[in-house]
Amino acid sequence: MPVNLTAPDPASLLPVAGVRLGIASAGIKKPGRRDITLIELAAGSQVAGVFTQNRFCAAPVTLCKQHLATGNIRALVINTGNANAGTGGEGLKRARQTCDAVAQLMGYATENVLPFSTGVILEPLPVDKILPALPVAQADLAPNHWSDAAHAIMTTDIVAKGASRQISIGGKAVTVTGIAKGSGMIHPNMATMLGFVATDAAIAAALMQQLVKEVADVSFNCVTVDGDTSTNDSFILIASGQAGNTEIASASGADYAALKTALSEVAIELAQAMARDGEGATKFMTIAVEGARDRAECKQIAYAIARSPLVKTAFFASDPNLGRILAAIGYAGVTDLDVNALKVWLGDVLVAENGGRAASYTEVQGAAVMREAEITVRVALNRGTVNATVWTCDFSYDYVKINAEYRT
Amino acid sequence: MPVNLTAPDPASLLPVAGVRLGIASAGIKKPGRRDITLIELAAGSQVAGVFTQNRFCAAPVTLCKQHLATGNIRALVINTGNANAGTGGEGLKRARQTCDAVAQLMGYATENVLPFSTGVILEPLPVDKILPALPVAQADLAPNHWSDAAHAIMTTDIVAKGASRQISIGGKAVTVTGIAKGSGMIHPNMATMLGFVATDAAIAAALMQQLVKEVADVSFNCVTVDGDTSTNDSFILIASGQAGNTEIASASGADYAALKTALSEVAIELAQAMARDGEGATKFMTIAVEGARDRAECKQIAYAIARSPLVKTAFFASDPNLGRILAAIGYAGVTDLDVNALKVWLGDVLVAENGGRAASYTEVQGAAVMREAEITVRVALNRGTVNATVWTCDFSYDYVKINAEYRT
Repeated sequence: MPVNLTAPDPASLLPVAGVRLGIASAGIKKPGRRDITLIELAAGSQVAGVFTQNRFCAAPVTLCKQHLATGNIRALVINTGNANAGTGGEGLKRARQTCDAVAQLMGYATENVLPFSTGVILEPLPVDKILPALPVAQADLAPNHWSDAAHAIMTTDIVAKGASRQISIGGKAVTVTGIAKGSGMIHPNMATMLGFVATDAAIAAALMQQLVKEVADVSFNCVTVDGDTSTNDSFILIASGQAGNTEIASASGADYAALKTALSEVAIELAQAMARDGEGATKFMTIAVEGARDRAECKQIAYAIARSPLVKTAFFASDPNLGRILAAIGYAGVTDLDVNALKVWLGDVLVAENGGRAASYTEVQGAAVMREAEITVRVALNRGTVNATVWTCDFSYDYVKINAEYRT
Repeated sequence: MPVNLTAPDPASLLPVAGVRLGIASAGIKKPGRRDITLIELAAGSQVAGVFTQNRFCAAPVTLCKQHLATGNIRALVINTGNANAGTGGEGLKRARQTCDAVAQLMGYATENVLPFSTGVILEPLPVDKILPALPVAQADLAPNHWSDAAHAIMTTDIVAKGASRQISIGGKAVTVTGIAKGSGMIHPNMATMLGFVATDAAIAAALMQQLVKEVADVSFNCVTVDGDTSTNDSFILIASGQAGNTEIASASGADYAALKTALSEVAIELAQAMARDGEGATKFMTIAVEGARDRAECKQIAYAIARSPLVKTAFFASDPNLGRILAAIGYAGVTDLDVNALKVWLGDVLVAENGGRAASYTEVQGAAVMREAEITVRVALNRGTVNATVWTCDFSYDYVKINAEYRT
């Protein structure tokens, strides 16, 4: 069961001027399932994205990169039920066919359309099912369909994921709304999973790539469920420019900072929602590593802990078998790490120092923290000033069940 | 259940001249459990080892390295039920106390004794239980107690692991016998787990470190269960020199090669046994990567597949959800990998080529291979001439069960 996570109230997902969403059912994996989402963007919208670094990247990821390079995106089309990954040249052809169909329908060029797919890998994309659903999705286009879209992009997600913020930039109200899907095959290597965050703020095209990267680095690039980096990860940032603010033209000003903060808050909420709704999750875990020499070694140690099946099964069992955390720190690959200098806390309880168990630690203390649904592991390396945090979930019988039965 | 693995017939584990083994019960974790093994080596035995690279290496690993440097090892003492890892200065003191006690009992110096521990991390070693058991183990010393020792060093292992070979070197019969334990927290980063392989061959001390490294690299460094590198991994090679062969003095001669082959066969059998008996295993998986530029990228790709929870749960379910294998190849970290040039086979069935599913592949073929208990995944990269193989097992409900309930 998702940990302290419920689907957002549809009314809480605020419309973003210049962005309309439409849903349809193509029945790709299951008849009647609403599995097609169309997002229409007003002319002049700025769009940037970050994508999986998996070498077996999906056909839609390849097309997205090509189309983004043209600089004029007017529509996004998303299907679930099939990843269109590991599909070779035929996969590219079918992704392009989908873009073509959207372009014809809406009066754009093919390269104005970004395609996204998520679902099973290595199976041909059923374009024959997708194409007839596109006019239905078009007819459904409306500014307040964010919640429907959040549901329509789900795969093994139990809970739909969405968040909104409103801020003021230069006296103008600016809205940020985002949706995401992701529950398994979650391990960041750029952006992870599918995430779409839109704002009506006006911002210079030249700043978009920096902004999407900065937001991804503090949100989607800080979450792991199972250590598997997907073939289809995409995080797309949309700025429709309709809020009426003076265009943000510099990354060093207060307006850029304010927008980035709002976007990051939405993206972090979505990223944490993925770990809360991680496949089979019963605990939400925050791994905070501090006092490192650089961000890379922070992440290395945080991910070693967050990925360890032994750590994750101990958390599932609420068993403070904390030696497994030390083992993960030790094998993370920081070869000159001084284990006698570091400290480890479980919640507020000091667990380890001087290379061993803290004298003050008791099993009763550890067991009390372990009973919580949200647990923070904090590691102080005492060798520098850099901190980083990773979110994950535990490893339960249901993870095995979900992934053993995924295609049945 | 272990995959095609039964405990070796005690008579099949051949005595090695110059090596005697004794067992005792210290009741470290469970009363009455035979958890102490003492191995006595004849004077003049050569001993070398490779150890975990985990920075949180256990106290006995630290002592082993110190004592091996002195070049005169006469006894090994092994306990299960407690890893004496994450135990700081006090852990070192207790490991040394154990060596002291063995030394006094047998008339050696402390540095003639190698200590080994395996079990739970972060808890103090109960020397008060271990010391009284040592004279019992000494009284039990006998050349034919290899099978008893194989049982006494087990932790979550279901099946005891041992193997023997006999070869002829310079007209003299040479015996190789080895035992090992390991089932979880198995991921090589040097040697993995506890492994002890002894021969009565005479070999120059100067060659021992090279030999143990070469044998580890083709055996214990090719196995993973859960991707967790233990704090206590140790692989020890013993050569008692009592076979009567002319001392092997060069690594380039036929005698060295013959001995290395026999040692490697025993070590490979033991390493494969660990995957066959991996925690919760229902399938034994061989991941063979060929046509790579170097061994490092072979291993990188093989381990990405072998560690992936998504691949492992699909194998548990006998579901040919083979896109997960492609995804793992793609995120393994070989950044210039051409996915259109590689091929993937499941057993003898060609699954993927030209960046996608092979035209000849059918689900029926994949499902047939998946029903087997032993399955080979073969990946041909077509970018070089180097091959490497990794052994692993699937990921089942029982893995979660075993590790969630480990301390109860």
